[in-house]
Amino acid sequence: MTKRPLTINALITRTNQQLKQRLPKENPSYPTLAQAMRYATLNNGKRIRPTLVYLAGTMLGATLEQLDAPACAIEFIHCFSLVHDDLPAMDNSDLRRGQASCHKAFSEDLAILAGDALVTQAFETIITSNSPLNDKQRINMLQCLCNATGAYGMVAGQVMDINNENNTKMSLAKLKTLHTLKTGELIKASVLLGGHAAPNATQNDLDQLEIFGETLGLLYQVCDDILDVTADENILGKQSGTDEVLGKFTYINALGLDGSKNYARELQQDCLKALKNLKSNSEHLATIANNIFQRV
Amino acid sequence: MTKRPLTINALITRTNQQLKQRLPKENPSYPTLAQAMRYATLNNGKRIRPTLVYLAGTMLGATLEQLDAPACAIEFIHCFSLVHDDLPAMDNSDLRRGQASCHKAFSEDLAILAGDALVTQAFETIITSNSPLNDKQRINMLQCLCNATGAYGMVAGQVMDINNENNTKMSLAKLKTLHTLKTGELIKASVLLGGHAAPNATQNDLDQLEIFGETLGLLYQVCDDILDVTADENILGKQSGTDEVLGKFTYINALGLDGSKNYARELQQDCLKALKNLKSNSEHLATIANNIFQRV
Repeated sequence: MTKRPLTINALITRTNQQLKQRLPKENPSYPTLAQAMRYATLNNGKRIRPTLVYLAGTMLGATLEQLDAPACAIEFIHCFSLVHDDLPAMDNSDLRRGQASCHKAFSEDLAILAGDALVTQAFETIITSNSPLNDKQRINMLQCLCNATGAYGMVAGQVMDINNENNTKMSLAKLKTLHTLKTGELIKASVLLGGHAAPNATQNDLDQLEIFGETLGLLYQVCDDILDVTADENILGKQSGTDEVLGKFTYINALGLDGSKNYARELQQDCLKALKNLKSNSEHLATIANNIFQRV
Repeated sequence: MTKRPLTINALITRTNQQLKQRLPKENPSYPTLAQAMRYATLNNGKRIRPTLVYLAGTMLGATLEQLDAPACAIEFIHCFSLVHDDLPAMDNSDLRRGQASCHKAFSEDLAILAGDALVTQAFETIITSNSPLNDKQRINMLQCLCNATGAYGMVAGQVMDINNENNTKMSLAKLKTLHTLKTGELIKASVLLGGHAAPNATQNDLDQLEIFGETLGLLYQVCDDILDVTADENILGKQSGTDEVLGKFTYINALGLDGSKNYARELQQDCLKALKNLKSNSEHLATIANNIFQRV
């Protein structure tokens, strides 16, 4: 049997299958909960974070089976954040990934609860998974997920974001902190989760992954800001121009469109540099950084 | 040095101190997040769940230091659920524990995010705690917390609850399922968390704790329904009569006020029976069941 090469499309397919298996089934007493959770998760998501888990993990010797649980966990966290982000009290977005956002398709209360259940689902996926992971690996992964998600991670970034709506005087340093928390922590966690699944990963491997993940997270956000002003709504899969409507201070405000594109190029190069410090073949992770950059 | 006897008041004080220590400090970049989390947690909470963790755990030989993390974790989950429950899209409550609910004191978006961060805080507290717990104990506790909280636990109960607003034909069996999920799972988890912290707890200990916890959860909910129609708002610390306003089907609807009181008495007795099947001195847990019953 020929070993098939690892392609990003194959990993996206695997992610979708794994997510589907791990989401709760409809319970006749409360069918809408599973429906809303599945609706918010099984859609046209790009699966960037799970793909990063798989790529970073296999690069360092983890098996796909060791990576399924963390790959799903990080996507559950991401999907939860989108559901809550879209709520009327937050970004008030009607559209997400080309379809009605969760609270529009269901209701606001259900969207709040489905988001809550997705957080727990993320932790549960790592804790109870049949994947060949020992307790120490699971604890490391859970720790990584907590750091990225909670009061010192993504949620902190979201609070910083809403506190700075209509703030047109933010420094570039503050903007970077905001996005490192809001987007970067979860991207960084993705590659680190992959690292924790690899039994032979060294501290240097984890350190370089951390630098790569942090930089990739910034790259992703800068490109997102650029796309919000340049991309067509149908391609973007969500409303474009929302940053301006919400009065959000973005890299476009801080650096201009050209300046933002130059900064994105710089970040892409920094990603590739971090990968070169790894002893493994990091070609696939480089492709991810290149793909994100090539969208803008 | 004389060993002081374990009193419920001392455990509540200990819980409050532990919660305070384990909550995030204010970060200058996003101070409101820690403020809202602390506001939602450090209040006049009765700390029933942490007290149950301490009582069940010490009964089976765990030290207070082994119990601090799970005690705080379960209270963080409870506080998160209250913050989200009170939101305008959910119960729309302005008052909680005698003060403005979190979204009234801060804002709706911040309340959503503070609730989200409290979930993560709960898991993090068990994962990273300095408490003398091994990885297996932590994994068992985290599993217990997931079961109680997510898509098969409390959140499921909340979805069932909102799906049944204005449903005046619910069967008693369905009402019990609803409350077992919505309230019972977290109460059950409290005693089980205590059990998991005790290195020498037997399977029989855990089984009996589970029965006790499940029954105590039902007792708690029946008494809550009774208090909603009989208690003064100032004593209750929240708006009374809200179940009727929201058109919720309660034990009062199913069994009448007297019937509900009789059912509460029955549940109290069942709690005491389960405790008698334990080989340890369960006097303190019995007091909890008695105290809950005596409120009505």
